[in-house]
Formats: sequence, C-alpha cells, structure tokens
Amino acid sequence: MFAHNKRLQYTVRVSEPNPGLANLMLEQFGGPQGELAAAMRYFTQAVSEDDPGRRDMLFDIATEELSHLEVIGNIVVMLNKGAKGRLAEGVDQEGEMYRAITGAGNDSHITQVLYGAGSPLTNSAGVPWTAAYIDTIGEPTADLRSNIAAEARAKIVYERLINLTDDPGVKEALGFLMTREIAHQKSFEKALYSIAPNFPPGKLAGRPEFASVYFNMSQGGPELNGSWNSGDKWQTVSDRDQQMGVDGGSGEASVQLDADDAELLNAMAARTMSDPSVDPMTGAELGMSAETAAMTPGASATGKQPPQPGTVH
Amino acid sequence: MFAHNKRLQYTVRVSEPNPGLANLMLEQFGGPQGELAAAMRYFTQAVSEDDPGRRDMLFDIATEELSHLEVIGNIVVMLNKGAKGRLAEGVDQEGEMYRAITGAGNDSHITQVLYGAGSPLTNSAGVPWTAAYIDTIGEPTADLRSNIAAEARAKIVYERLINLTDDPGVKEALGFLMTREIAHQKSFEKALYSIAPNFPPGKLAGRPEFASVYFNMSQGGPELNGSWNSGDKWQTVSDRDQQMGVDGGSGEASVQLDADDAELLNAMAARTMSDPSVDPMTGAELGMSAETAAMTPGASATGKQPPQPGTVH
Amino acid sequence: MFAHNKRLQYTVRVSEPNPGLANLMLEQFGGPQGELAAAMRYFTQAVSEDDPGRRDMLFDIATEELSHLEVIGNIVVMLNKGAKGRLAEGVDQEGEMYRAITGAGNDSHITQVLYGAGSPLTNSAGVPWTAAYIDTIGEPTADLRSNIAAEARAKIVYERLINLTDDPGVKEALGFLMTREIAHQKSFEKALYSIAPNFPPGKLAGRPEFASVYFNMSQGGPELNGSWNSGDKWQTVSDRDQQMGVDGGSGEASVQLDADDAELLNAMAARTMSDPSVDPMTGAELGMSAETAAMTPGASATGKQPPQPGTVH
Amino acid sequence: MFAHNKRLQYTVRVSEPNPGLANLMLEQFGGPQGELAAAMRYFTQAVSEDDPGRRDMLFDIATEELSHLEVIGNIVVMLNKGAKGRLAEGVDQEGEMYRAITGAGNDSHITQVLYGAGSPLTNSAGVPWTAAYIDTIGEPTADLRSNIAAEARAKIVYERLINLTDDPGVKEALGFLMTREIAHQKSFEKALYSIAPNFPPGKLAGRPEFASVYFNMSQGGPELNGSWNSGDKWQTVSDRDQQMGVDGGSGEASVQLDADDAELLNAMAARTMSDPSVDPMTGAELGMSAETAAMTPGASATGKQPPQPGTVH
Amino acid sequence: MFAHNKRLQYTVRVSEPNPGLANLMLEQFGGPQGELAAAMRYFTQAVSEDDPGRRDMLFDIATEELSHLEVIGNIVVMLNKGAKGRLAEGVDQEGEMYRAITGAGNDSHITQVLYGAGSPLTNSAGVPWTAAYIDTIGEPTADLRSNIAAEARAKIVYERLINLTDDPGVKEALGFLMTREIAHQKSFEKALYSIAPNFPPGKLAGRPEFASVYFNMSQGGPELNGSWNSGDKWQTVSDRDQQMGVDGGSGEASVQLDADDAELLNAMAARTMSDPSVDPMTGAELGMSAETAAMTPGASATGKQPPQPGTVH
Amino acid sequence: MFAHNKRLQYTVRVSEPNPGLANLMLEQFGGPQGELAAAMRYFTQAVSEDDPGRRDMLFDIATEELSHLEVIGNIVVMLNKGAKGRLAEGVDQEGEMYRAITGAGNDSHITQVLYGAGSPLTNSAGVPWTAAYIDTIGEPTADLRSNIAAEARAKIVYERLINLTDDPGVKEALGFLMTREIAHQKSFEKALYSIAPNFPPGKLAGRPEFASVYFNMSQGGPELNGSWNSGDKWQTVSDRDQQMGVDGGSGEASVQLDADDAELLNAMAARTMSDPSVDPMTGAELGMSAETAAMTPGASATGKQPPQPGTVH
Repeated sequence: MFAHNKRLQYTVRVSEPNPGLANLMLEQFGGPQGELAAAMRYFTQAVSEDDPGRRDMLFDIATEELSHLEVIGNIVVMLNKGAKGRLAEGVDQEGEMYRAITGAGNDSHITQVLYGAGSPLTNSAGVPWTAAYIDTIGEPTADLRSNIAAEARAKIVYERLINLTDDPGVKEALGFLMTREIAHQKSFEKALYSIAPNFPPGKLAGRPEFASVYFNMSQGGPELNGSWNSGDKWQTVSDRDQQMGVDGGSGEASVQLDADDAELLNAMAARTMSDPSVDPMTGAELGMSAETAAMTPGASATGKQPPQPGTVH
Repeated sequence: MFAHNKRLQYTVRVSEPNPGLANLMLEQFGGPQGELAAAMRYFTQAVSEDDPGRRDMLFDIATEELSHLEVIGNIVVMLNKGAKGRLAEGVDQEGEMYRAITGAGNDSHITQVLYGAGSPLTNSAGVPWTAAYIDTIGEPTADLRSNIAAEARAKIVYERLINLTDDPGVKEALGFLMTREIAHQKSFEKALYSIAPNFPPGKLAGRPEFASVYFNMSQGGPELNGSWNSGDKWQTVSDRDQQMGVDGGSGEASVQLDADDAELLNAMAARTMSDPSVDPMTGAELGMSAETAAMTPGASATGKQPPQPGTVH
Repeated sequence: MFAHNKRLQYTVRVSEPNPGLANLMLEQFGGPQGELAAAMRYFTQAVSEDDPGRRDMLFDIATEELSHLEVIGNIVVMLNKGAKGRLAEGVDQEGEMYRAITGAGNDSHITQVLYGAGSPLTNSAGVPWTAAYIDTIGEPTADLRSNIAAEARAKIVYERLINLTDDPGVKEALGFLMTREIAHQKSFEKALYSIAPNFPPGKLAGRPEFASVYFNMSQGGPELNGSWNSGDKWQTVSDRDQQMGVDGGSGEASVQLDADDAELLNAMAARTMSDPSVDPMTGAELGMSAETAAMTPGASATGKQPPQPGTVH
Repeated sequence: MFAHNKRLQYTVRVSEPNPGLANLMLEQFGGPQGELAAAMRYFTQAVSEDDPGRRDMLFDIATEELSHLEVIGNIVVMLNKGAKGRLAEGVDQEGEMYRAITGAGNDSHITQVLYGAGSPLTNSAGVPWTAAYIDTIGEPTADLRSNIAAEARAKIVYERLINLTDDPGVKEALGFLMTREIAHQKSFEKALYSIAPNFPPGKLAGRPEFASVYFNMSQGGPELNGSWNSGDKWQTVSDRDQQMGVDGGSGEASVQLDADDAELLNAMAARTMSDPSVDPMTGAELGMSAETAAMTPGASATGKQPPQPGTVH
Repeated sequence: MFAHNKRLQYTVRVSEPNPGLANLMLEQFGGPQGELAAAMRYFTQAVSEDDPGRRDMLFDIATEELSHLEVIGNIVVMLNKGAKGRLAEGVDQEGEMYRAITGAGNDSHITQVLYGAGSPLTNSAGVPWTAAYIDTIGEPTADLRSNIAAEARAKIVYERLINLTDDPGVKEALGFLMTREIAHQKSFEKALYSIAPNFPPGKLAGRPEFASVYFNMSQGGPELNGSWNSGDKWQTVSDRDQQMGVDGGSGEASVQLDADDAELLNAMAARTMSDPSVDPMTGAELGMSAETAAMTPGASATGKQPPQPGTVH
Repeated sequence: MFAHNKRLQYTVRVSEPNPGLANLMLEQFGGPQGELAAAMRYFTQAVSEDDPGRRDMLFDIATEELSHLEVIGNIVVMLNKGAKGRLAEGVDQEGEMYRAITGAGNDSHITQVLYGAGSPLTNSAGVPWTAAYIDTIGEPTADLRSNIAAEARAKIVYERLINLTDDPGVKEALGFLMTREIAHQKSFEKALYSIAPNFPPGKLAGRPEFASVYFNMSQGGPELNGSWNSGDKWQTVSDRDQQMGVDGGSGEASVQLDADDAELLNAMAARTMSDPSVDPMTGAELGMSAETAAMTPGASATGKQPPQPGTVH
C-alpha cells in the first residue's frame, strides 16, 4: 500500500517563474526517460516478481521514483506559477498574453493553453505519456538489464537539463535526481549479477554455430574492427553469398498448402497478375505536364491504347 | 513524498489461476477507466493545486488509487500465476502451450507472450495506457467535474467485472474497489459545491443571447422533449434557416488579405483549378472492368480525348 | 442521416492572417477538449442509446458540435490563408519563408509544412487526435456526467483562447462557441437528473462499510478538512495500520495452485533467484571512473571474484 | 536479405549547422509522408506479394527508400552537428545554451534535449512515427493506388522543404529525393494499369443502382457542378427525402431479439429512463452564479424540489 | 452547417444479435479504412479548399460518409443489442456471462466490458481511432490521389466483411456502403483529372536526370521486368557502384563547422571513444553460463583484466 | 546505402498454414521487442554516431535486423498463405469463413480482415508499431546499455515463441533469430566496455552524498537485503523522516513571484476557494437512491440549503 507525506523528498527552491524552462522540465515528468516511466517500469516488475529480495528492492525504487515524479512536478509547477495566474484570470492586453504564451520558443504554449500552466503527463513536445515506453517483459535477467539502461538514459537527460539552467535551486534539485539514477543503476547491477548465470537471459541456449558469428553487413569503406567483432571470440562473415541462406538452404520461404488453398491462391494470382508485356497508358500520363513529358524518354510513344469501356481486357 | 508498505490495502484471495479473467481485469489496471488513470488524474491536479484543502484531498485520493492499482495488479498476477511458470520454463508438448495461450478467447495471448504473464499497463485489448486518458486542465471547477465523471465510469467498469466472475475472493476485492469509487465521487462532489459559484466554470460569462437556446439539429421523427430542451428555461430553434448564421451575418468565413497574399492565393487557385467544362478520361476508366462499364451510364461516350504527352493542357 | 448547408452556424470574420494564432486555435479543432471530441462523444452515445428523448438530445448536440468543428476550422483556415499561398507557390527568398515558418514561436511550422497551412486534426502541439479522448462507456448515468465535465473543460479552453487574441471577429466567434458549451452543459445536467436515482451510477450498490470512509493517505502537515472528508457523513481513517488490509485480512495476495503449476513456479524461482549472500562484480564496476570509485564507500574491497568462463556458478 | 554500403546514395554537403532546419527535415525522416513510412509501406507489400514482377519492384523501391531514409537522416545529423557537441559536453554559460535550445522557434528543443541532437523517428513536431501511417491492406489494386498517392504526398512535402532553405547542398539533395518520388509514382502507375481490370478494386461488383448516383448532401448556396457529379454518367439526388432510406425502407435500424434479451433491455431502459415530465434541480443550478442565473429565463422558478435523501424517486 | 435527420440513409435490418460479428464491423466504424477516417479526410480538405466546385464535392462526400458512419454504427449496435442488456443488468450465473464475453473468439470482450456493448471509435482490435490515419496535406493533386486510394481500400474492407456474414440484412447494407465507395472513387478521379496538368503534383519539376531512372536495388534472382522499370521510358541502373553517390560525389555526408563546434565534437569523441585495441571483460562474461562459455570460441582466454576501482582507465 | 538480395538470410520452411500462429509471430515483426524496433534503434544510433568503429558495428547490426525483419515477415506470410487466398477470393459458405476468421482465439481476425492476411507492422494484439519503442538518446554509454537490454528482451520473446510451436521449420528459423540476439548482445557489451570509463554514463559526476544511499521506501514486512542495498557500499535510510527533505530543507516547493503575479494568483485562489465551513448540497445527493441514502451516515441532515439563483454566494 502507498502512503503520502506532504513534504517532498527534496526541497524545491525556484528563483523566478519561467514557463519555457518549465516546459523543458516536462521531459522528466511525462517523457520517455522520465520519472513516471521509471516508477511504472519498476512497479509492474515488482507486482509480479516472486523473488522476495528483488521484489522488495523494486518496490523501494518504484516508490522513490514516484517521489521524484512529485519533485520534478513541483519544479514544473513553480516555474509555471506566474503563467497560471495570468492565464486563469485573464488580462486586458491580449497581445501581451499572446506574446507571453508563444514567446518561450518551445511548446510551453500547449502547457499553458491546454493544461492551464500545470504539470501534464507529456514530454516537452506535448506528446502524451504512453505505456509503450515501458519495456517490462517479466523475465528478471532481461528486466534488470532494461532497468540498468533506463537509469543510464535518465541520468543523461538530467545532465542535459542541468546544463540548461542557471537557477541554483533548480540545478540543485536536478543534481539530486540525477545522482539517484546513478545509485539506482548500481542497485540494479548488483541484483542482476546476483543471478548466476544470467547470460544468455532466459532458459534456452542459443545454437552454437550462430552464437559467435559476426556478419559484416555494412561494407564499402575502411573496416574498423574491435573486440565487438574480431579476435578469437568471433568468426566474421564478410562474403555476401555466405551471409544469405546461412542454414545452407535456398534462402527461400515456402509453405505446404493443400489443394483448395493452392487453387484459391492461383485464382487470386490470376486476377491480380501484372502483365509485363504491355506498356499501359496510366493516370500519370493522363495528367502529365508538357514539361514533364518533355523530359520523359519515350513519352511521345505512349504505347498501349487506353482501354475502351465496354470491352474486356 | 510517497512511502510503501508491503501489505495491500485489501487482501487478495484468488481461487485458481485463470489467464482469460486476468486479461479482463487489465481493464482497471492499464485501461482508460482504470486505477493508473485515476491516480494520475488526481496527482497532476494535486501538484498544481493552490487551495490547501483541495490539494490535501487530491493527494489523499491519488495515493489511495495507487494502492488500488496495486490491488488490481495483484489480482491480475495471481490469476496469471500458473501461466507464468509454464511460460518461463517451457513445456514439452508445444501444441498444449499453444492451446493454453490462445484458448482464453480474449487477448490473454499478448499478456502471456509479450509480458510474460505479468501485469502490463495495457487495457484488456493490449492497448498501452496513454496520458491522453487524463483530462486535467488546471481549473478546479472543470477538473472536479472531470473527477466526478471519472469515478462514475470506473464504478461501472468494476460492476461489469464483478458480474463476470464467480471467484469469491476476486468478487470481494472488486466490490471493495467499486465501493471506493462511490466514496471518492462523493468527496469530489462536496469539493465542487464548496466552490461558489461554480457554474459556469471559469471566469468569463457566456453571451446571454446564446446561453439558453436549444438548437433542434436532429429532426424528421417524433420530437421527445424534456427539461433539457423545453420549458421556460429554453428557447428552442427548429427552423433550419435560423440555425445558420445565428449572429445575423452571412454565415460565411472571410479574412482580409494584403495584396501579395491575395495574388499568391490566386496563383494557387489558377494552378489547381478544376475545370468543370470537360469530362476527362480518368484512371478509373483506364482500369474499368467490362462489368463495371456496362453498369455505368454514358460510359461508352467517354468524353475528352486522353491528353497527348508533349502538349500543354 | 446528416445533411450539410454551406452557410456556417456563425459568421467568421478574421481581420488578418496569423499562423501562430491559427495554431493555438487547433486546440479546439483537433485537441482533447475540442469539437471533434465533443461531436464523437455524443454521437457514439446517441447511436447506442435506447431512451428516445436522450437519443434525440444527443443527436441534436452531436450535430451542433460538428457545426462548431466547421466554425473553428474556418477560423484556423482564415488565419492561415496568407501562409497557404506563400507555401504552395514558393518564394524566391528562402530565408524569408524559413523565418515566417518558424517565427510564430509555437508549432505552426508543423501545420504549415506538413499540412499545407490547412486545418489538421491535431492539437496545438501537433499531436494527432485520438479516440482515447472519448470516454463513452454506454451507461447513461456515467456518460452524462462525462458530458457535463467535457463541456466544462471545453468552456475553459475557449475562455483561454478568447483571452489570447484581440481580433474582434475571432473573439466574437469564440464567445459564441464558448457560450454554447454552457448551454450544452445545462442540457446534460437536466438529462442526468431526470434519471432517478442516478447515484451511485449503474445497478450494484456499494459495500456500506466502505462507502463513507475517508482514508487520510497524505499526512505530515496541517490537515485541512472540509465537507469532502469530515463531518457526520464521513468516517475518517488516519491510522496507517488501519488503512491496510481493511478487510481484516493479512493484506497479502494469494492464489491456490495445483501441484504442476507450483512446481514450475519453483523451478523459475530457483533459476532466477537473486543470491543475497555474495557481492558480485558488476558491469557498473567494470566501467566505473576513478572519480566515481573514489566516492563509493567500500569500492576498493570489491567482493566476489568475477566468474571464470568455463565454470558453473 | 539486406546489405549496406557505407557510401550514401547521394552526397550530403551542408554549409553550416542549423538545428531549426534540422528539425523541419525530420518531417521526411520520421513523419507520416517520410521515408520510413515509404520503405515500410512497400516492404510490407513486398513480403506478402505473390506476383513475382510486382514483388521485385516493391523490394527495389522499398530498398531505395531505406537508402533515402539514410540520406535525409544524414542531412538532419549534419545540421545538428554543432548542437550535438555543445549539448554533450556542456557549456559554462547556461543562459546561452538555453537560448540556443529554444531559439529556433520550432520543436528543435525536443530533438536536442531528449534525443541528443540526433535523428529521431519523429516528425517535426516530435510526434513518434507510428505504423498507423501505413495503409497496406494486401490487395494490389488498392495498395498500388495507396502507393501512387503516397508518392504524390511525399513529393509535395519535399517541395515545401526545398522552398525553406537556401543551403545549396541541402537544396540539391532534397531535389534528388523529390525527383525520385516522381519516378516511383510512375512505376506504381505502370504496375497498377498492368493489372486489367483494376476498377473497381477487388472482386465484388458494386450494386448498379447506387454506383453512379451522386448525393448532393451539401446545399444552400450556388451549386458548382463538374464531371465529378454531373453529366450523363451521374444521377444526382438533391431531394433531402430521397437521400434517406434509399433502399426504400424506413431508414430505421432493427434487430430481432429473443424474449430474454428483450426483457433485459426493457429492464435497462426502465432503470435509466429520463423522465421528461419534471424539471429537476441540477448540479448546474446548485452552483450557478448570480450573473448566470440572471440571464437564465425562468431560473427563478426552479421547478422540482431537490430530492430528499431517504425517499425513493 | 450540419443538420441531422433521424432516418438513416439506408435501412438496417439485423436478423439476430452477434457480438463477434459486431466487433468485426468496427473495422469500418473506427478503423483506419472506416467511415470516420473517410469523413474527416474529406472534411479537412473541404474546409481549406479554395476551388468552389471541389469544395462543394468534398462537403457532399464528407457529409455522406458521416451518414455512413451512422449506418455502420447502427449495424454494430443492433448486433450488440442482446449483449448490452445482459451486461447492464447483470446475470446470476457469472460463468455464463464470462463465456459469452470471451466466446466470440475476437476482441468483442473489449467492446462489451469497456464500452458497454456500444459502438466505440476503435478498429476490430480495440485500437482507438487516430488522426494519424488522415493523410490530407492541402495540395489538391496529392489529396485527390489520397482520396482515390482511400476509397479503393475501403471498398476492399467492405468486400471482406460481406464475405464474412450470411445475415441478409447486414450483407445488403454493407453492399450499399461498398458501392458508394466505388461511386466516390469515380468522383475523385474526375476531379483529379479536371486539373491539368496534375503530374507531377505540386509546382516544382523534378530533376530530369533522375526522373526516369530505375534503380534495381533488389537483385540475386530472376529479374522480372515490366513497363514499370523497363522499356524506352526507363534507364535502369543495376550496377551497385552506380547506385551510390549518384551525384558523382563521394557519397559521404559533411558539414562545415566553426572551430568552437569542432573542438566540442572532438572532446565528445575523445570521451566516448571505443578502444578497439583491448578485449575488455564485459557484463555478459560476468554472467555467462558454463554452457554458453563452452560454446564461445576463445572464452577461456578472456583478455583484459577487469578494471580495479580506484584506478583510472 | 542499402541493397537487397532476394534470398533470405535464413531459409523459411513452414509445414502448414496457421493464421493463429502467424498472429503470435507478429510480436517480433511489429511488436516492441521485434525486429523493426531493433533495426531502427541501431540505425538511428548509427546515423549520428561519430566513432567510426561503433558506427560500422551499428550499421552492420541494423542491416542484419532488417534482414531478420524479412525472415520473420516471411514466416508470418507463409503461415497466413491459406487465409490469404480464401479471403481474397471469397467463399460461398460465409459461416465457414466467419469461423475461420475468429477461430484462432487470438487477434488473427484483425490481421486477416484489415490487412488481408499479410504481415502488418503491429504486435500480436494489433497495436501499430510506434517509435515510442525506440530509446536512442544519442549518448553511447547509455545507448549501448539500451541495446544490451533490448537484445536480452528480444531473446526472451523468441524463446517464448519457440515454445509455442511444433512446426520444425518455424522452430528452426526462430532458433536462428534468437541466437543472433545473443551474438548481438555480446557485441554491444564489448563495445560498451571498450569505452572507459563508462559509468556513470555521460559527463557530470553525481553528488557523492546521495550516490550510495539506499532509501528503504517499502517497509512493513521482512526486509530481505542483498548486495543491491546493504553491505559497506551502501548507506541505508529507513527512517521515514530522514527520507524527506533529504537536503535538510523543509521539503516544500517555493518560487519567488513578483507582485503582479502574486496578485493574480491570489485572485484565482479567491475565486476558486473551497469553503470548508459549509456542507453543501451536491449533485450526488440530488441523484442519490434511497438505498444509498440509507447507508450514508448523516444523510438525512443534508446541511446547507441549495443556493438560490439570483443571489450572490
């Protein structure tokens, strides 16, 4: 069960309202790398986790992320405080409010007009948060790696936001939030490596003949190799022919159909067959400009007579 | 700040696993009328609310909804418990697992294959939760009405789910959750009517000449009137002509353009003008079947000669 | 059946083009509180409504909202008229067009480049309209409350837009549209209260022992109570322990599994067990900077030997 | 199988960084008319196409579109190159970076803060690409028409982008990409008209009595007719009454229900009936301001007594 | 302005309720090829169209599509009528209702539980309608082609639905709707070819050297050529080298940076450089199973010593 | 530049059509952990990567994932081959086709009806692919971790799919695809650890006082600790009071407003103040059923008189 205390985890001191900066901060409120995504990623894992230690950790961190959501939300709200009053009570000089709304040079207009200078669950472009951001799949050796990566990404976005403001109170609170992502990453790393083995994730082993092959699919310039594709741990395949049909087969797709299905497919094929033997008049030619026709090789010899309604083709 | 206790707000006792029922329960976990939507609706309002009493109430109820999210999530997880083990550890008889995955007759296949029989933030059709469900706009006389409506909807969806199961533990927990929506609706009603006046919402009054008019836009059968459109509080307008241009104007849209803009628009109009004076050959006629042509009046007299490449039309 | 008349319901007179303002107006064309959302909310209710009076009202108002969609669309189009010509016909001085496209300080660039200065079904941030905005669930005592709330929200967004412009023709048309939301709210209120009883919505009663309880979930500061949580109609629960397991149970979740399922779950648990007894080397430690290591307590004593490939852990 | 060569299909020479222009270019990278949409439209058709010639063409063009995705992506990346370094390494004067991030006047802030000045799969408003843009339905006579239309749209968006920049290298590369859309449209036109007949698409013929009727649904002003609705190929129906129930029936919807279903529907209807005979007190009236009440006809005579709790209505 | 008449454009006679079939019909109510998409495609074009004839046609057809939305919505509602009553009023035998809800074998469960057996704006998979389906871009020579394609797709989906039911009333109404798509396609074709020239769409001509080139990007098997890529109208390029850098340049991307930007990029490059000269211990190796290690060539010689916290690398 | 060869990377041999299985396979075609997501994750990183070795690797793997997209797409298409013909050509016994369409027990109905038994870019629930799945942010030490996690997830989903089928050809091809995810994960691991240091990601160090703190936010039961939250590397904070205001401040949010802003906010607060001193009549009470009233404590003493229109409150 969740409980709430009215004090924030970290005190928020904002020097002055700035709706444009508020809008950028939304990135970590309702954005893909933000706190709701973090909280929900760990919460959904916690709820279905059977290992008691991991479950406890996941609830600990999910709950902290909810508290961070509240901190970043309060930063947004404080930065928007001036705009909120102006918007709610109206002003006489409309041109002035129009300039204020659109003057930040980013999407703060949407925050203000649609959301009343509040703290909506969108990213800084106004895109509503979606659970498509959540990559929980219910296997801990995969989910913990997802968590490690998510913390790394969140750390970076906080770093970028810190670089954007010189409000000392905002900077300080963001620094706290950024640091906590580092701490969380460390916890998830420990939890992952406490499962042994954890690679490859899951239960099925791979097929040995393909597990250490590196397909050199991008060619045509200098090849820069490293431990990721060369050395005695890798078998590199650069020959284009050997990159296809690697099972030794034809590289074709096939299915065994019964007679009825085959017949229907043939009927469809016949009905929709492209006849390569004619050069039909087309809609593009019907509508072609002289300029275009002039640059079209052979256009003056437009082949096939347009079909006459009333006859079968 | 949020805190978490490992006990649930309500004890969840599930009789036996049932992935199909688990999938239906997702409606209130990650669906539009579900608990995350509720929690986030009130949380976003709480964060930017300035009235201390309302803010307190919004945090109270947001926090309880998070606790409900946990309860419904646990119901889903328990109903999926059997599927989770089978899926993670594999089985020998694949046909059997295939039948189990697809046998529920609903979307439990997605929950199982993609989410590992966990509790994803989707509705029962597998659609990811989106903040587009959240209708917070930052004006309390509107937001409280949104909350009242949201509680009413959530109550109904719980009622439907209760009718779907005969597992007594599930029924009982759903009954608790449903009842809480009723209690929350009562709180929001009290909070709304504690603001006086609260209608119309916001600050601007409407234009009196249009505020009590009822436009009878759907006609052609028996008119059933009620207090919503008749009586001395309403002026009903049924005459089609009086429903248009109700300002007394032409009902046309206009803008004053400067000469440059006007010229460019004229150029565009000229370039893209539809010439109504000819009956051009078209792509449809090029490709028309005999059967279609036969049923096309006048098709045999297809007018205009197809354009000749190399000439201007 | 729908019919259309070329006259608008309200005459639109725009003083001069203004793509930035056009973009803000999109909020009520393709935004969540806009006219398409309104029209479709009521239309989907009307189609499945069995009560003839309500059905008639819902069609009346849905049809009027479609007519409002047309009015607001025409405002957008008129405000964009100058941009449309410039865009379609091109200009010689590209820098100039670039400045015009990006100069409004909001998302009018998307409207212009992608939609040709037309009237797309997006909100003012360019987010495409989604039926996730529609909260129709097919129970009139809930749907009518949703409609009341939706009208309140739409009224507020119009109010904000009115405050943003000093174009008298735009102001006047927006005032009409805003007023109609007031009128519609009044109709929906009458229709709701014409159903008796209408609270709680639906058919099932709540469980009396939980219907008047207020859980004080947010604590830690001054408690401001009101009619929404105090007085003789409420039983307030502030003791954290009494907020958990409110059914008197353990507050745990359980399910009865058969032996096969239990065995598989145990196998999964064993495979993915986190071993709390070791302090494993982790990826974070592999990649840790000296600066980070220095601030990590105990980092110099990194416990467990990294696993040796070739041996089982 | 796909292969990659490190050379681009077209050389990209950008004069100087310009994050605002980079952001506009995203329209054709991750926007609805952009190159990923094109590549995936044709790829999904190719994979399931049975006609060998068409399949080959679809793979040819899908592959070229992927190569175009790479070209436009490189344009974006080069235009963002300066921003990328500043963002990754931070700067001392935060105000400066804030101004740079928000100064473009469009959504380049999202590209920079969230995506690190890279090339994300969003349109120029930051809306993530969605497969909802893809209209492949698996019938070649429809899909080829979709392709023709898609190429036409993509051509136009390139044209608009060309008009926005005076960087000669960008202009030149965009000109190449635009021209290729023209070439692709020509190929798809030929492929469509090589299927005979191709109209109407699919297999079922339409019902002759409705296939050449034009319903004049928008009336009330001058009627401008053309070959699309007049002439001997069309039968125009302008009489409103003849536009309804065109099958000669009542224009009503009906279903045959068994007795049980009918009874339940009656029960629902009774439970949710709107009583038109009373004028109930409503929530709006409870909260009405004096100003609103004053302009409400008959408001002083608010009819029905509010219901007394404890009695049934 | 829109008006509504209570009679449908086509009488709907459903033989018996069938929620599974209702669910499939949603494809044309709230699906991508459905009637709302059609109505909104044409409506958004109509509102910003300047050519009076085309504008009139677009309003005519948009209005008819709204009337079709009503017809298909009524089919859905009638097919769901039995389910609606059962759901709203509850039943005693829950197992029975559960079987009814999940027995259709498709997504009718979502329609019933979430939408109360109404007619929601989703497709048959429960995915909410999105304006991302709308491809209006504001240039008539592109938009009319989009309309032609959209009508072709809608015709096909109706054809598939007709094949799925043997309810004669449903079949008949679907036949009407399908036929109207044919008629609309014919109108849009006429309107397109009434603009001359209409190819290439827009104003800018393509670059002649690339407008008739066909890049043979998919090779390796029999080449089946047709009028779409061969003949005297096409110059086919099959040589892989000639498909790259087709402008004669290097096929590389470049931008001119000033010294400051270059320095920052170098700093970033140095900070994030991958060192190819070492074979580092990795997280995968830390967690590798014995089985995996055994199949990893060279794994026993795991190169580089894991880094020691406290030292700089 | 991309090139295509008609041979697949792996030969696809399907024993017999099975639309239900085809639908499940979509998970890896257009699902969040599928091949398009993989290809686009690496492609977007490659395009903006400056390190030549990493860029080469990213293009190699992105290109291979596109080739996998083709393999899995061919599996889907082959499994759907029978359905495709039946659907396109229609059958006489509609009931039969209806049963076939809905008989799979999953969402294959959408694949068949809407997409013509092709291979759409949706997951197995029919949800369109979205770039919201892509978590590229342009910092290699974060992006490589995202790639590692993504490969882990994809491996698991393939494992689940393998367990679902006994078609040996499908099983074999899926085994190949699954194994390649393992190989890719190994490459990304090597590339990550070739950057030193790589933790914490990015440039800014965390704040030391918060980097090794573990907040025990979930309490109330047995605490299971491990290396993730205990030992000499962690400082654990369990005292609730010390979890709040961890900066030593009040835990409150504040902003400095100028006098004008403060005045407007006060005006708004006054206008929207909730009056806790009265117990107003509410909408819920207006509509309350007798049953509900009876269980409402104090309901018979409904306090405040409903407001009288015409007087100011």
